[in-house]
Order: sequence, then C-alpha cells, then structure tokens
Amino acid sequence: MPPEKQYYQAHPTFHVAVDSIIFGFDQGELKLLIHKRQFEPARGEWSLFGGFVQQDESLDEAASRILSEHTGLRDIYMEELHSYGEVDRDPAGRVISVAYFALIPAGEFTEAGKSKSGATWVSMEELPSLIMDHNQMVEKALRRLKRRAATQPIGFELLPGEFTMPQLQALYEAIYQSKLDKRNFRKKILAMEVLIKLDTKDKSSSKKGAYLYRFDQKKYKKLVEGGYNFTI
Amino acid sequence: MPPEKQYYQAHPTFHVAVDSIIFGFDQGELKLLIHKRQFEPARGEWSLFGGFVQQDESLDEAASRILSEHTGLRDIYMEELHSYGEVDRDPAGRVISVAYFALIPAGEFTEAGKSKSGATWVSMEELPSLIMDHNQMVEKALRRLKRRAATQPIGFELLPGEFTMPQLQALYEAIYQSKLDKRNFRKKILAMEVLIKLDTKDKSSSKKGAYLYRFDQKKYKKLVEGGYNFTI
Repeated sequence: MPPEKQYYQAHPTFHVAVDSIIFGFDQGELKLLIHKRQFEPARGEWSLFGGFVQQDESLDEAASRILSEHTGLRDIYMEELHSYGEVDRDPAGRVISVAYFALIPAGEFTEAGKSKSGATWVSMEELPSLIMDHNQMVEKALRRLKRRAATQPIGFELLPGEFTMPQLQALYEAIYQSKLDKRNFRKKILAMEVLIKLDTKDKSSSKKGAYLYRFDQKKYKKLVEGGYNFTI
Repeated sequence: MPPEKQYYQAHPTFHVAVDSIIFGFDQGELKLLIHKRQFEPARGEWSLFGGFVQQDESLDEAASRILSEHTGLRDIYMEELHSYGEVDRDPAGRVISVAYFALIPAGEFTEAGKSKSGATWVSMEELPSLIMDHNQMVEKALRRLKRRAATQPIGFELLPGEFTMPQLQALYEAIYQSKLDKRNFRKKILAMEVLIKLDTKDKSSSKKGAYLYRFDQKKYKKLVEGGYNFTI
C-alpha cells in the first residue's frame, strides 16, 4: 500500500448525510416541505428530507438526487447552507450532515407536495418540532433567506411569472416575519427598478383589481450579482 | 444489531477533513497563511492548513485543534465557509473537506507565522498555486470577506487596537483588490459613526503624521449584528 493510503487509513471515516431545507411560497405564506421519517431512530417524527451520500456522487449530486427521489423535482437550484458535525447529533451513530437549501418555484409547488414519501408543506408559522438538529438548520436557512432579501432582490424563484404588488409584499413579510408598510414597501421596491408593470390586472382578490408585474430578468440578474452593496 | 444501525451500516463512510483559510493583514497587505504539505500526495507543495476530523471531535473542534497544532494560536474566531465534496478532489482517496476561515488579529500575526510546520504568510497579490481545490477555497473565502466588508464594518479583527485612516483604507483596498478614493473613503467610513478619533498621531509614515482612531466597540458590535441591511 502506498504510504499516503496508509496515512489516510489511520484516520476514522464517517457517514455523511445531506439534509435539505425546502422553501416554497403559497397563499401568502412561506412554507417548508417536510415529511415523517421512515426509519429508526425517530421513525414517524417530522424531519427534513435527507439521505446518505454515496460513494460515486459529490455532495451537490447527493442533494439533487435526494430531492428528486422524494419530490420528483429535478433541476431545482440548491445551495449549500452549513455542515453539522456535533459528535452526538444523531443518536444512532456519528453522522456529519451537510445542509442544503432550495427554493421551489411557484409552478412546482403542488407537484413537490405530492411525493410518495409523504411530503407535506407546513407554514413556517406553524412549524412542528423536527428531529435532531433539523430545527436549527431551518433557522439558519431562514436567516440566510432574510439576509439575502436585505442585500439582493428575491422573489423570482418563489413567485409565479406574473404577480401583484400585494403578493410580492406578502413574500417579503413572510420572510421577515413582520408586517410592512404598504406605501413604503411600494416605494422602495419600485426604486430597485427591477419590476415591469403590465397592462393587465389580477381581479381575483378585489373588484378593483391589482396590476400585475413581472421581473425584468436582466436587471434582476444584475442586482443579484452586484447586490445592494455598501461599496466604499 | 438494532435495525437503525444495520440501515446506517449499509451506507459508505468517508474521510472528512478540515481545511482552513487563514487571513492576516500586515504592511498594508492582505495575507494568507500557508505551508508546504508534509505528506503524500503532493508533499512539498503549497497547501492550506488541514487535517482529518477525529472520532471524538465536532467539525468546529477539529478546525480549532488543527489551527492550534500548526500555529500555536488558540481562541481564534473561525467560521465555516463551505464543504467540498467532489468525488475526485483528492487523488489519494475520497475525502470530504469542510473549509473554515479565520482572521488573525494583528497582535498575533507574527506569532502565527512562527509555527514548526513551516507556516508562511504570503501576500494575496502573490498567491502561489495551491494543491487540489485549495485555490477555489481561498477565492470563496475572499468573496465572503468582500461581501462582509460591503454589509458590515470590518477591521476590528485584522487591525491593531489603534490605527490611522490610511491603514484602514489600505485594509479595504486589500480586500476589494482595488484603489479607493481617499476623500470618499474617509467620508463614508466616518458616516458609519463607528470610529473614535484619538488625540494622538502616528508619525511613523509622515512628518505631519496621521491621527489615530479606534473602533467604538459598542457601535461596531451593533453594526455587525444589524448589518447595513436593505430593510424594506
């Protein structure tokens, strides 16, 4: 055996899992896709979607595979959030977990909730207790989503292609978990110059109706890349 | 064997490493602490400080231990950056690496470079080619440092307790990797209201001297927590 192999083999190995925080936005609420765990320990308790990394796949590939196996969704943008490596985090043995988060597009929201493995959308307002450190993972993902909302435009992933100002405001309110002033929100969001106002109105929620908007994709992308940076 | 153990054991296990991106600031330059790798593969090539996670330690503990073993430094703030899990990233075998980054305080800069394992501070301007994906890790850490500089005050960790405006500007210039306008920088940084101007001058770099400043720790901390958020 070459010396480097010997050197490596003197060190322990670990199970590595991927757990995914899957956000969606529906009916004015930020929601999380969870399911009841199908194996021991903690079988039947609420859990994020997770699974073990396999020999022939990268962490990113494992995250995509697991999302796809549970929800049928492919080509969903996923981003690594944080690694969880406390020694005793899993009562059944040492598992290092790499958490990912995903934003499910509005058009796939219903489909994602139809999985065989009991996927359930729960409102972030009524999030149940999850197994192990999964609640910590969700809190961290929510903090990242909030920070992103503070430095980049968001919504493209979570809203339908055309949306009203009240819908966009509801998304920000759901992420910030607080009510925002309507006039002030409108002013600030329009100042971003990232919205295109359409000629059509959505009349589903009021007689008068609300104008529909869509994102200017080019400007949106530019803002996402550049951020609202405090550049000295 | 309980069924959950059997279930776990049907999955592969991996070596998990920690690699640390260690930044310092000296002589107006942002520097990175690296050393020549002491074992195969790639023995003798430039590398970040890394090591394997052990059975009885968390990822954070492994990062602190490895930093301490190589540099003698303890109680340095470290933050997880990203996990690297490509299948073929290490030619000697599958290793999943969790990258951390650390900012070495000015007072410990010299001490950190005195380690037994050949620690060397290199300027980010003259960064050599590092082994495996270590250059990618450094680039990601630099992006995070830049983003942080854009949304929070920085410098407390990297500057001495008292510093001049040109020193602070040099730090920002080193992070942004571009020259900044002196007057504009001064104006923006003072508008943050996080600096306390002292009565004494540093005359080491000019006859006229430059006033010394220190951070108002309370305001600094508040800005770090709150960020320069674009809050709607």
